[in-house]
Amino acid sequence: MRPRFYLPALDETGRGTLGADEAAHLTRVLRLGVGAEVDVFDGRGGMFLARVVELGRAGAQVQVLGPAPSAPEARLAVTLVISVLKGDKMDDVVRDAAMMGAGAVQPVVSARSEMSLAALLRGHRAERWQRIAVASVKQCGRAVVPVVRAPRELRAWAVQPGGDPVLVLYEPSAGIASRLGDVPSEPAVQLLVGPEGGWAEEERASFETARFRAVSLGRRTLRAEAAPLVAMAAIYEAWNGW
Amino acid sequence: MRPRFYLPALDETGRGTLGADEAAHLTRVLRLGVGAEVDVFDGRGGMFLARVVELGRAGAQVQVLGPAPSAPEARLAVTLVISVLKGDKMDDVVRDAAMMGAGAVQPVVSARSEMSLAALLRGHRAERWQRIAVASVKQCGRAVVPVVRAPRELRAWAVQPGGDPVLVLYEPSAGIASRLGDVPSEPAVQLLVGPEGGWAEEERASFETARFRAVSLGRRTLRAEAAPLVAMAAIYEAWNGW
Repeated sequence: MRPRFYLPALDETGRGTLGADEAAHLTRVLRLGVGAEVDVFDGRGGMFLARVVELGRAGAQVQVLGPAPSAPEARLAVTLVISVLKGDKMDDVVRDAAMMGAGAVQPVVSARSEMSLAALLRGHRAERWQRIAVASVKQCGRAVVPVVRAPRELRAWAVQPGGDPVLVLYEPSAGIASRLGDVPSEPAVQLLVGPEGGWAEEERASFETARFRAVSLGRRTLRAEAAPLVAMAAIYEAWNGW
Repeated sequence: MRPRFYLPALDETGRGTLGADEAAHLTRVLRLGVGAEVDVFDGRGGMFLARVVELGRAGAQVQVLGPAPSAPEARLAVTLVISVLKGDKMDDVVRDAAMMGAGAVQPVVSARSEMSLAALLRGHRAERWQRIAVASVKQCGRAVVPVVRAPRELRAWAVQPGGDPVLVLYEPSAGIASRLGDVPSEPAVQLLVGPEGGWAEEERASFETARFRAVSLGRRTLRAEAAPLVAMAAIYEAWNGW
């Protein structure tokens, strides 16, 4: 397998300059030089065979030679709406969502999230998660990078969640949720997953008001950072969305 | 939720002594004393309300007061047969398998595993994984601890894999595998998952000889340590096994 590099901007002649992180990976980690053949992907579905044509102060420049194969996108378009988890756990969730095939990740701050929206924005967390999504996409062979949207308050998101239907994951003890297999399939879905402490009472009420579909997965308690991966696998399987 | 402790041996009067790790957790981490009410589980399906009755040189003794609720076991009995992964990744796999509801974990050493069987046995790795399974079971509320079996060579295991049918997970590029949803369901299954580098040619041939069912999950490459969790979620969903 050729090494893959993220190159969102190509000029009309198929030439482009790698960003600083990507260039460092090419030269310092992989020790590749001018003439090396690599794959570049634009994050929007384009994967190309390219050659390194210049390494200098202007950065690492590559020239596209032609199309290259990439892993097909999932049939089911999933937006993962994830209540922000503690510390590194969100990194794992974003990495796994990108690997599985999520189209977008919407971080939300819920009543039991341990970080405030202000702290997330101040810490540029969404930019960090976007970089993690790029790294994960490289590994799994996709040519599409899921967009990590700006974090929002769950309350604000829930009153205007956008077009795709919302499935909200409940812990098994909630006792009010359907089996995923009993929910009619959709071509696109927003999957709303909660934080370590689950949903607060007023959040559950707002989900009912908004007519989100409540689902649960089995009868054992999943770790919060594993729940999105398990839910995506189950929904792809249930709805033939792989 | 009351704190949970693993107590595999109870006498006929419902009294038992916690092991050293469990006792340290009770006294030093949770700072509980005589009279505290806790849950104890025997790892074979029994979960009980108990009271701490003695703390002394003989260890932490508890007296069972009655039954306590536990998370139901999965309908589908899954044995995860996992080719040993590098470093901590196996810890994550065992933790996730126990959380999901696996009945047993069989570590195997395949052609592309990076540790030898001798090194695994010398390092008492199975004992470590068994402790990880106990810790995971505590978190997810099960009263059954999956058995982590002694590691074996894949070659030896594959010629005598025991009674339950075997599904072997292939990477999407293999192009020879069925969708899981097309495989008829079974009440029990052994799920065979490979190492970072996938299966060797001679291993694929031996799986065909043994008539294992080849399946794959989607068309994106899964990280090796995430594949067992994704596969378990998909098979529970496909076969109503949650």
